Amino acid sequence: MEFLQRYLTAFNQYIEDNRFNKEPHSLYEPIDYLMSIGGKRIRPALALMSYDLFQNDIEKALPIAMSVEVFHNFSLMHDDIMDDATLRRGKECVHIKYNTNTAILSGDMMLIKAYEYLQHYEPLTFAQAFTIFNKMAIEVCEGQAMDMDFEVRNNVTIPEYLQMITYKTSVLIAASLQLGALVAGASKEDQEHIYEFGKNIGIAFQIQDDYLDTFGTPDLVGKKVGGDIIQNKKTYLYLKSIELSSEENKSRLAELYSSTPEDEDAKVEEVKKIFKSAVADEYAKMVMEAYQQLAVSHVNSMNVDETKKKSLIEFAKFLVGRDH
Amino acid sequence: MEFLQRYLTAFNQYIEDNRFNKEPHSLYEPIDYLMSIGGKRIRPALALMSYDLFQNDIEKALPIAMSVEVFHNFSLMHDDIMDDATLRRGKECVHIKYNTNTAILSGDMMLIKAYEYLQHYEPLTFAQAFTIFNKMAIEVCEGQAMDMDFEVRNNVTIPEYLQMITYKTSVLIAASLQLGALVAGASKEDQEHIYEFGKNIGIAFQIQDDYLDTFGTPDLVGKKVGGDIIQNKKTYLYLKSIELSSEENKSRLAELYSSTPEDEDAKVEEVKKIFKSAVADEYAKMVMEAYQQLAVSHVNSMNVDETKKKSLIEFAKFLVGRDH
Repeated sequence: MEFLQRYLTAFNQYIEDNRFNKEPHSLYEPIDYLMSIGGKRIRPALALMSYDLFQNDIEKALPIAMSVEVFHNFSLMHDDIMDDATLRRGKECVHIKYNTNTAILSGDMMLIKAYEYLQHYEPLTFAQAFTIFNKMAIEVCEGQAMDMDFEVRNNVTIPEYLQMITYKTSVLIAASLQLGALVAGASKEDQEHIYEFGKNIGIAFQIQDDYLDTFGTPDLVGKKVGGDIIQNKKTYLYLKSIELSSEENKSRLAELYSSTPEDEDAKVEEVKKIFKSAVADEYAKMVMEAYQQLAVSHVNSMNVDETKKKSLIEFAKFLVGRDH
Repeated sequence: MEFLQRYLTAFNQYIEDNRFNKEPHSLYEPIDYLMSIGGKRIRPALALMSYDLFQNDIEKALPIAMSVEVFHNFSLMHDDIMDDATLRRGKECVHIKYNTNTAILSGDMMLIKAYEYLQHYEPLTFAQAFTIFNKMAIEVCEGQAMDMDFEVRNNVTIPEYLQMITYKTSVLIAASLQLGALVAGASKEDQEHIYEFGKNIGIAFQIQDDYLDTFGTPDLVGKKVGGDIIQNKKTYLYLKSIELSSEENKSRLAELYSSTPEDEDAKVEEVKKIFKSAVADEYAKMVMEAYQQLAVSHVNSMNVDETKKKSLIEFAKFLVGRDH
């Protein structure tokens, strides 16, 4: 991610200069903790990169970059409670290190603070940024609710799944890019194109994530493959296999996904075989590429210099097309 | 509360017309549930009453009234998880009726929706409303954190206690009044006076609440007195008694507040005796009246017709001065 380095450096300095570090410590310390343990900072980097397409003084986009990063961390703090997670970025989750009540209340405060950073802009820009931000926030919560609903449903369709990952993951990437463009004074059209770019590349990224979790090279992915299968997660591969499999394979798949056998490896192998026989792996790659191309087409429609478009296309290739 | 009836009628109709009632139901149904089980709707009524001081068409203030009521219910939904409560307004709390994850996520959505209602106003008013709302939201969270901190601290001072109740309770009442005045186009000065009126009457109300919980007439209060004492809550009465008691009474009080004896009534009686010997009950009444008078003085400084001020003063008398 070398081409993002400049944005990351500026943003990390801004976080350093804007620690919450105030009273009551019980409320603000967990926020500084979660913000300090890092993460890839993809969303703020995208906001800055997007701003940089239209204006040069990227420091003006730092508050909007902070807004999306604080929002992202708010959602992680609360999602980790809901998912009963213990580790985040290799460190203890806030509700483990402190307690659940703290994670609820400090999370609430982060959501409020995410809104507050929008106020760095003059009233008209602020009102527009608010509209984009608020729609995104609603969709992210709806996406999380859909994801929780899907765990106990057996009739999830592929369109529903795509809707869920769009809301849960992609709209925040899309909004980060649009907000960067907005505060740079980009036209409504360019804002929409860059939003669609982010949305589609986000969907492609999530399907790739599903694919790599099952068919990735373990050494490159950096974790054991098959985690989604072991957890019975209804990913794109699963849903497409249910759609395309023979009746026999379909019932076997449903059976495998309602159990947690001792021999996990055998389960992973059998499921992978069914996925392959349904050609779900090939479908996943096709759909992924289709979304990636759609994303790139929105970049090509933008009214900015060709040279400037390169960073976005480079980012799209970086994000989707990795083999790990 | 007859003089508030007109506002309550308009507001209840507005809630009825603005049910969230949409997909995913798992997310929105708990919101409609909590909003529908009522409550006194004091905050939206105050926003409408405040608007009515400056303008006649109160329907224009309905979105701002909705914003403060949705925010209030967001804080109840999350506080009930933190406080391990089971009942709210005589009905099951959301985290009991549904589950904790639902109460976290639906609460988050309510906070987002509370912000969204601000957007019914044009950009300049919206930006000003946002500033008032956001400051209030931060303070309410800080107040909740302070309240949780105080439970495990033994050196809470009266100024700290007053700060905590101001943040946890009063600033939302104050902001409701100010926001109503703002959207009615009131001057900055009148907005500040009505904010201070709300803040001070809120403090008086909370101290009265402490007083009545211990010294109220059971039949009028509608519940057994002494609940705060049984729960070892460090109220104004407790803190003032610690300040003014003899060394002997002070240690006895601390001892009583670190135990949960079987004979609750005996504990309540003994604590009440110590409160009385420290004259903490009289201090509470004095302080309460002082805040009430301060509240009224802000009404008197406002630049509105004398007849219109009456409703605010009537409200102050209604809220503080009840013997139940």
